[in-house]
Amino acid sequence: MSHAPKAFSHLDATGGASMVDVGAKPDSHRTAVAEGRLTCSLKTIAQLRARALPKGDVLTVAQIAGIQAAKATSALIPLCHPLALTSVDVGFTVEADGIVVRATVRATGKTGVEMEALTAVSVAALTLYDMCKAVDQAMSIGGIRVVEKRKA
Amino acid sequence: MSHAPKAFSHLDATGGASMVDVGAKPDSHRTAVAEGRLTCSLKTIAQLRARALPKGDVLTVAQIAGIQAAKATSALIPLCHPLALTSVDVGFTVEADGIVVRATVRATGKTGVEMEALTAVSVAALTLYDMCKAVDQAMSIGGIRVVEKRKA
Amino acid sequence: MSHAPKAFSHLDATGGASMVDVGAKPDSHRTAVAEGRLTCSLKTIAQLRARALPKGDVLTVAQIAGIQAAKATSALIPLCHPLALTSVDVGFTVEADGIVVRATVRATGKTGVEMEALTAVSVAALTLYDMCKAVDQAMSIGGIRVVEKRKA
Amino acid sequence: MSHAPKAFSHLDATGGASMVDVGAKPDSHRTAVAEGRLTCSLKTIAQLRARALPKGDVLTVAQIAGIQAAKATSALIPLCHPLALTSVDVGFTVEADGIVVRATVRATGKTGVEMEALTAVSVAALTLYDMCKAVDQAMSIGGIRVVEKRKA
Amino acid sequence: MSHAPKAFSHLDATGGASMVDVGAKPDSHRTAVAEGRLTCSLKTIAQLRARALPKGDVLTVAQIAGIQAAKATSALIPLCHPLALTSVDVGFTVEADGIVVRATVRATGKTGVEMEALTAVSVAALTLYDMCKAVDQAMSIGGIRVVEKRKA
Amino acid sequence: MSHAPKAFSHLDATGGASMVDVGAKPDSHRTAVAEGRLTCSLKTIAQLRARALPKGDVLTVAQIAGIQAAKATSALIPLCHPLALTSVDVGFTVEADGIVVRATVRATGKTGVEMEALTAVSVAALTLYDMCKAVDQAMSIGGIRVVEKRKA
Repeated sequence: MSHAPKAFSHLDATGGASMVDVGAKPDSHRTAVAEGRLTCSLKTIAQLRARALPKGDVLTVAQIAGIQAAKATSALIPLCHPLALTSVDVGFTVEADGIVVRATVRATGKTGVEMEALTAVSVAALTLYDMCKAVDQAMSIGGIRVVEKRKA
Repeated sequence: MSHAPKAFSHLDATGGASMVDVGAKPDSHRTAVAEGRLTCSLKTIAQLRARALPKGDVLTVAQIAGIQAAKATSALIPLCHPLALTSVDVGFTVEADGIVVRATVRATGKTGVEMEALTAVSVAALTLYDMCKAVDQAMSIGGIRVVEKRKA
Repeated sequence: MSHAPKAFSHLDATGGASMVDVGAKPDSHRTAVAEGRLTCSLKTIAQLRARALPKGDVLTVAQIAGIQAAKATSALIPLCHPLALTSVDVGFTVEADGIVVRATVRATGKTGVEMEALTAVSVAALTLYDMCKAVDQAMSIGGIRVVEKRKA
Repeated sequence: MSHAPKAFSHLDATGGASMVDVGAKPDSHRTAVAEGRLTCSLKTIAQLRARALPKGDVLTVAQIAGIQAAKATSALIPLCHPLALTSVDVGFTVEADGIVVRATVRATGKTGVEMEALTAVSVAALTLYDMCKAVDQAMSIGGIRVVEKRKA
Repeated sequence: MSHAPKAFSHLDATGGASMVDVGAKPDSHRTAVAEGRLTCSLKTIAQLRARALPKGDVLTVAQIAGIQAAKATSALIPLCHPLALTSVDVGFTVEADGIVVRATVRATGKTGVEMEALTAVSVAALTLYDMCKAVDQAMSIGGIRVVEKRKA
Repeated sequence: MSHAPKAFSHLDATGGASMVDVGAKPDSHRTAVAEGRLTCSLKTIAQLRARALPKGDVLTVAQIAGIQAAKATSALIPLCHPLALTSVDVGFTVEADGIVVRATVRATGKTGVEMEALTAVSVAALTLYDMCKAVDQAMSIGGIRVVEKRKA
């Protein structure tokens, strides 16, 4: 028994890249949730709690960066379709040695919004990195993945 | 004996966020190298090798996305300074169950270029994710970190 | 009798910022008109009339800047939803000591377009400022407000 | 017998420029195909074939640039309406002394997509130019035109 | 005695618009400070103080929007030169019936940075407007002007 | 006697694309002039002369679009280096059956500015096309080439 492998969606018949045709797909309500994590030192989190969290500033800056990045996804990821997002939410859980970033994105459209959620998480985490790099040179970002995807 | 903790560089005196003043810093040649990894299934890599790598397309698309993202860093990361990059290079190592992304960025300026290298890696990895997501729904991106930073 | 104050729309349950969910709202035809004014010297207006208005150039440049800004609103204002504008019109009334800027924006969508109209007015006025600043160092921009808002 | 000339669509009543109101137009499926050509030396094409075409890189880079430009059309062309493109395809025919670029763009909306197709062709051709200019200083780009336009 | 009026800097010999040549100007350290004000109801400020200011969120969002806008000035104002800003600071004074926005921008370059400071103020004020518009429909933005300009 | 062909500048050792390292190059004053032509019907030019040219609007809109595009070149052309342009000038010659577009771009930097001049010409011509397409469906754009390039 043979079955053809599912095609890589962005490769056209001659192997070139294209933004695939979704014109015939119906519009539906799409939701995607993605997560990632900035891992840093215990000391960085302690400093963050002591100095920045009471004001919320560091997290708010990263939140805004993530929201803006979600809206810019089709300009950043070459074969992503432009989508009019109806909702973007970026939240954080501060842990002992890191910060978990979670983004929820919604749109009504012809394609899913997981790239938008992953992009929001990535850019929010990069922004946290940028704001902490003066005090911590050994951080890393990981665990970026889709944790939920719905179509209704 | 006490010593004040090194300040979070982007928090000003009243706790607000600002793009810190680097006007008095001398220009120097800056290099930063960052890495990250898309982890996917063995089958995805096999399909990638069988169908896409001979053309180089998937990797080239991700390469271009990473290069473009490096140039857009100060628009994506709110407190990053704009910098005229003199070189951006994005390369890949295809492994059995994943793809390592490595970006090298250079500029002559008053601030380092690690955020540009990290942003190039992140967006290149997101682009790989986007191009493989039709065949693999369990990928993740991780290990995003600076592996080298020089000033000369 | 008590009644809860209307919520600040962009603050979520935990006080963070988010791009609020408008996915359940119906699409409707939206119109917003905004105005603002560049106040400058009598002499600047006289020079503008004598030299530039016959060609319409200064006003056309500002008009284009305002139209382009309206389309970029969701990239500029962090919590604005992206909207496919169906019409943008920017006009001017040249007065003795200033220029009134008026923008009319229309879209079919789930949110109003007053931010787009206000952004068009602001950037058109800034562009006028930029073009006149070589001859007038005492200008100011004010009176930026929504003068009409309709939903049909 | 007299008949008024068809109006220039982007000039309003007072002669100023505006993004004309398309709010009352129905949505329809739009397709536009545009073409253009980079003319270069026989030697450049020979080098391209010998060194780059096996990898597809030069063409893929231009392809991605064209796709990204199509999505950015309303930011580049001042009076173009923003449109959620559903498909963009950019292809090439390598000839003896030049490369033909062809772009096909689709969207569901109130305006045609010929500007998006023309923009994709132009920027893809400029990207080819950029990648070949180290070996050929006498190239030119021409023949940029719409070859097909459909509404359904 | 006659003296020619100072030329409008952005009009070239034939009356067209251009981005004037500053190539022969020396680089110098430039600073500009601009201010503006969002006028709103006493009740809005009271709500802002009661609910949002403790977290700093509304002001931080506007701060980030202003900083990002300063960096985007040459993309927004057609005849502005691109400049590598070395510092952007956006601050607020909350008054009984309004919020004063103040931006300080620095760069080393051939042109002044007042347009960058004015743009930061304008977009920060628009962002405040956006975040308060659900509770206050009678706000306005005014008093946008340069309050200091230095070259060293 | 053999001599290696001059390398395609944007292909790195392994055949991938990169933004080549120009960090070691000295800064010099660069000028590039490019031209292109929109070919249209005699009737379109007649209408343009009769209705639009007296106001200069159509040409001014295209001029602004070309200037803005020059500044956005490194975001449009993937392997172009970002450059702080010191001057951009876009002019037009209206002929019987077409409009010649000419752009002059200057910068002080490590790379030439011909891509910026070619991009300005292309986008200005596309903008003319956009503004005339309601009255002329048989236009084309061609002759896009560098006519002068200097380094001092």
